[in-house]
Amino acid sequence: MAIDYQSLAVKGVQALSPYQPGKPISELARQLGLDPAAIIKLASNENPLGPSKMAIAAAETALTELCLYPDGNGFELKQKLSQRFGVGADQITLGNGSNDVLEVIARCFADASSEVVFSQYAFAVYPIVTQAIGATAVTVPAKDWGHDLDAMAAAVTERTRLVFVANPNNPTGTVHDSGAIEAFLDKIPQNVLVVLDEAYCEYMTGEKDPDGVALLSRFPNLIVCRTFSKAWGLAALRVGYSISSPTIADILNRVRQPFNVNSLALAAATAVLDDEDYLQRSREANTAGLKQLQKAFDEMGLRYIPSSGNFVAVEVGPHAMGVYQALLAQGVIVRPVAGYGMPNHLRVSIGLPAENEQFIDALAKALVAAGQGA
Amino acid sequence: MAIDYQSLAVKGVQALSPYQPGKPISELARQLGLDPAAIIKLASNENPLGPSKMAIAAAETALTELCLYPDGNGFELKQKLSQRFGVGADQITLGNGSNDVLEVIARCFADASSEVVFSQYAFAVYPIVTQAIGATAVTVPAKDWGHDLDAMAAAVTERTRLVFVANPNNPTGTVHDSGAIEAFLDKIPQNVLVVLDEAYCEYMTGEKDPDGVALLSRFPNLIVCRTFSKAWGLAALRVGYSISSPTIADILNRVRQPFNVNSLALAAATAVLDDEDYLQRSREANTAGLKQLQKAFDEMGLRYIPSSGNFVAVEVGPHAMGVYQALLAQGVIVRPVAGYGMPNHLRVSIGLPAENEQFIDALAKALVAAGQGA
Repeated sequence: MAIDYQSLAVKGVQALSPYQPGKPISELARQLGLDPAAIIKLASNENPLGPSKMAIAAAETALTELCLYPDGNGFELKQKLSQRFGVGADQITLGNGSNDVLEVIARCFADASSEVVFSQYAFAVYPIVTQAIGATAVTVPAKDWGHDLDAMAAAVTERTRLVFVANPNNPTGTVHDSGAIEAFLDKIPQNVLVVLDEAYCEYMTGEKDPDGVALLSRFPNLIVCRTFSKAWGLAALRVGYSISSPTIADILNRVRQPFNVNSLALAAATAVLDDEDYLQRSREANTAGLKQLQKAFDEMGLRYIPSSGNFVAVEVGPHAMGVYQALLAQGVIVRPVAGYGMPNHLRVSIGLPAENEQFIDALAKALVAAGQGA
Repeated sequence: MAIDYQSLAVKGVQALSPYQPGKPISELARQLGLDPAAIIKLASNENPLGPSKMAIAAAETALTELCLYPDGNGFELKQKLSQRFGVGADQITLGNGSNDVLEVIARCFADASSEVVFSQYAFAVYPIVTQAIGATAVTVPAKDWGHDLDAMAAAVTERTRLVFVANPNNPTGTVHDSGAIEAFLDKIPQNVLVVLDEAYCEYMTGEKDPDGVALLSRFPNLIVCRTFSKAWGLAALRVGYSISSPTIADILNRVRQPFNVNSLALAAATAVLDDEDYLQRSREANTAGLKQLQKAFDEMGLRYIPSSGNFVAVEVGPHAMGVYQALLAQGVIVRPVAGYGMPNHLRVSIGLPAENEQFIDALAKALVAAGQGA
């Protein structure tokens, strides 16, 4: 009798749909026979500046030690983060990207008997990690595409163990200011952990901008997650981290894999924290590119969700998948967000000025092509 | 009322002791005020040759793309592995080191209701991943320090979902030949998955040496795990993989993190597979170093477990921790294995000839020092 191995998987995994990443340039080049250099990818919220020279130099120096295991404690990187944020090194948990930290948090604090609360249109990793452990996802309807924090607080029950809040949120770009986050945290029982995912926070510069780290002293149930993949420009290397109480960090550090962050990632992330100029240029390029795109959308009569991230979700109508395909055919990769329940939108990452312009030109043609094809 | 956050962790995690890695050179240098260049580390089964030049060159080329996410499907590396082993790319699951693959397997196929079987003295990651998901570990007593395969087969019950077999095993270096593994697999019900961890298999060259990949066509419940961290010399980058049926690989690929293997790791691992000369030199250096150490142990009257890996467990007596400390004081890092239930042994990785000699000299002094200190 042949065994159905699918049926041997644990229940949550049987029903799991994996994360759908942006299409890699190499894949599109293979599929369409295009020159990879002619393709622009504005699909994965990557930093268009290219990497920090200081990060490259540090990673390059570490190449001679490829045979050696990484420092499993990430001593130097934790020291740097500790100084930067005025927290103890024992409050930090390093991850193979913040995806890793988000998953480890779920596995440490929730199981099949738990409820996990997050918003409609929130980052796709929250439902995936919830599903993988067989916990119950409680998806709270969004308000104006953003988190409805009051409704999320009201959704907490005795079974709730975790609440994920993405601020700014991906893929909508919506954000709540620090006062709103603090008021939300005041409503959450202290035995419910709040994961404040600030992957895009470095793009924000205003006075009222949220800063989860500043709230840690008031809220022992708060875990702040950040990443080197966006404004710091190190997506290839996979480095994220959380800051929490030492007690929570101790638990997370038991479950993360002992060498989860690779050596080149540790070296580059440690070095890039000294490159404030790079961070500043990332912010400025993003602000300018966001203006460029939003202005173009206005001129084209396209609605979009005002964004605080390095991307913007633009409404292209019911033929969004056709528009996406028509963009691909022109060598422009953006991200469909139908999987997020946003079938009329495409999410485009902010590129360099010329890339944004190329995208806008291609979009104009794609809208025509998709409309005619319907 | 202050919350005890420790008590909020899921049950398995509350009782979890994390993996204890070998002491990093940088840490010992900080602690003892030593020059890192004067320290030798024979503690983590790392390749002493230094990395393959082809791997370094490939990683270096990828440095310009640090801003971009890795190819989440690992297309090129899977193609190379597929050709090398004559398996489909859809049979491969890539991991952030084989640790990642081992953990993902456990999370996919076992939960709090499951039993997981492995041997006494087996690789520490098996009990850790079992404990983290709250499954019941069934530890089968070893026979002559190696896996007692008959007893392991007999330990399988209706609740058993997974059996981990390390071949060769770490930290003992014991191995079973392909006939013994095949006979073992014949005894295991096909609804129980067998994870054959062959992290050290590249060091073996004999005709009867085990080769899990060759057994895949006969055993649909078999998952073979391998790594680039040992003979291929890429421990810093974290690349491991499993080969299994496509159905099992599909399940594993749902749960692994979408960008679990970083870009430089993908580039270097893809390149190093073309460096057969490096692999051959790794094997030869290991065979010679193992002989050098075992000969020295014989001359010193020390018992050791004959090893098929790139390390050897030597019996130094009840003062093993004192010997370990006395070695550290001389700038030589090896691995205590009391955590494996082997309090009289130390595990030493095979180094270059001069490193092995330095270790042997330091060991002779350490044995005297530890004996006097007792």
